[in-house]
Amino acid sequence: MSAEAPLLSLPPMPGQRLARGTARLLRSMDHAVLTEFVPARGLRVDLISLGPKGELWIVECKSGRTDFRADRKWQGYLDWCDRYFWAVDGDFPVELLPEDTGLIHADAFGAAVTRMAPETRLAGARRVKVQRDFARAAALRLQMLADPEALIAGAS
Amino acid sequence: MSAEAPLLSLPPMPGQRLARGTARLLRSMDHAVLTEFVPARGLRVDLISLGPKGELWIVECKSGRTDFRADRKWQGYLDWCDRYFWAVDGDFPVELLPEDTGLIHADAFGAAVTRMAPETRLAGARRVKVQRDFARAAALRLQMLADPEALIAGAS
Repeated sequence: MSAEAPLLSLPPMPGQRLARGTARLLRSMDHAVLTEFVPARGLRVDLISLGPKGELWIVECKSGRTDFRADRKWQGYLDWCDRYFWAVDGDFPVELLPEDTGLIHADAFGAAVTRMAPETRLAGARRVKVQRDFARAAALRLQMLADPEALIAGAS
Repeated sequence: MSAEAPLLSLPPMPGQRLARGTARLLRSMDHAVLTEFVPARGLRVDLISLGPKGELWIVECKSGRTDFRADRKWQGYLDWCDRYFWAVDGDFPVELLPEDTGLIHADAFGAAVTRMAPETRLAGARRVKVQRDFARAAALRLQMLADPEALIAGAS
């Protein structure tokens, strides 16, 4: 690999760079990660992860103060996960973030948990629904990649 | 698209062609499909699908008599789904297949259900496990495609 390869492959947007590094962290913690997940109509989370025991974590990536201030929906995400985190870079003013949420410091290449989020376990029925929706969303994306014609083709 | 494109994109192996057409059928039935899923150690199913109400179906693709006769594991798959199907092409000797299993006729471009499989509902705990494993497997494959370095990179 040339020395330039990591730069060439860097995601273009700051939020995407945070998301990539955070996804690598979650992967190293044996969580499976899905980006841009819609837990309910009108909500779309940057990252959701599913741990080996079924733990559901949501992570919102914030590139800066303005990005955080513009977010009117994050409290709605708390109802769809067992733990909720922010992912920010080293320059982010972390005093803006509520203390009862998790904090991840990230860049494009990796991340670390600075403050573990408190756990509020989902009720059983909602957990089953989120896991099902997670599974279906991930599999549909894989099929679209493997066979882009699948949606327009159909039963014979 | 040129007239040759479908041929060029045809999966090389007979089983893969059946799997692609069957996956398109399942997609058209609003099922999300995952290939080569491992429900338990030593078992690997060609297709598993997750329906909108959480239905789990397994489909084994058989290219011919020899392929079917060589399968010593399929009865083990029955314990991991609500409905079990075979997918075969039009030349397959369907009298070989047990009557209490489902039957799908497929080619590379689509498929149709010839005989609906009887339903044997999974118990709750196993259903939760299969859905979780399905979700994790699909998301891990997506992450590997989106960020191949994720497995070797880690926490910073």
